[in-house]
Amino acid sequence: MNNIAGEIIGYVAGICTAVCFLPQSVKTIVSKNVRDLSFWSYLLYCLGIFLWIVYGFYIGSVQMIVFNAVSLVFAGIIFVMIVRYRSRS
Amino acid sequence: MNNIAGEIIGYVAGICTAVCFLPQSVKTIVSKNVRDLSFWSYLLYCLGIFLWIVYGFYIGSVQMIVFNAVSLVFAGIIFVMIVRYRSRS
Repeated sequence: MNNIAGEIIGYVAGICTAVCFLPQSVKTIVSKNVRDLSFWSYLLYCLGIFLWIVYGFYIGSVQMIVFNAVSLVFAGIIFVMIVRYRSRS
Repeated sequence: MNNIAGEIIGYVAGICTAVCFLPQSVKTIVSKNVRDLSFWSYLLYCLGIFLWIVYGFYIGSVQMIVFNAVSLVFAGIIFVMIVRYRSRS
């Protein structure tokens, strides 16, 4: 694989995992139904992504910081919705 | 931050994002309820993680390949459950 193809794959991967929870957060905000969502999965995901941002600062990778920060916004919205609405589910 | 602390943060981050969808996959397998899960989010997540594995081969990072392969197993299970059970939700 040449350098350009490899870097493009890295960027597409980063964009996919950065925005992947946009549809889930919209769906959850609209429906307010969180019964089928796992509290522990989103807690672990948010924690992991936060640590990737810290690691991004450590290795000085702007892409790692930005992609993970976007992901943390969407996953954080979903986690807050789970905490807020799970008692009624 | 010293080297050891930085590498530990990277490993903890990798473990968190590798296993984060274990609770969600167990919950979904047990309940078979997928109504609140976003088809597009898990499709994008699986695609992104698959591309991270390809990128891991490109840069020769065993950790990136292993962590993302574990994550793809759990997210893949959830995605298959969504495809299989969403019509009845």
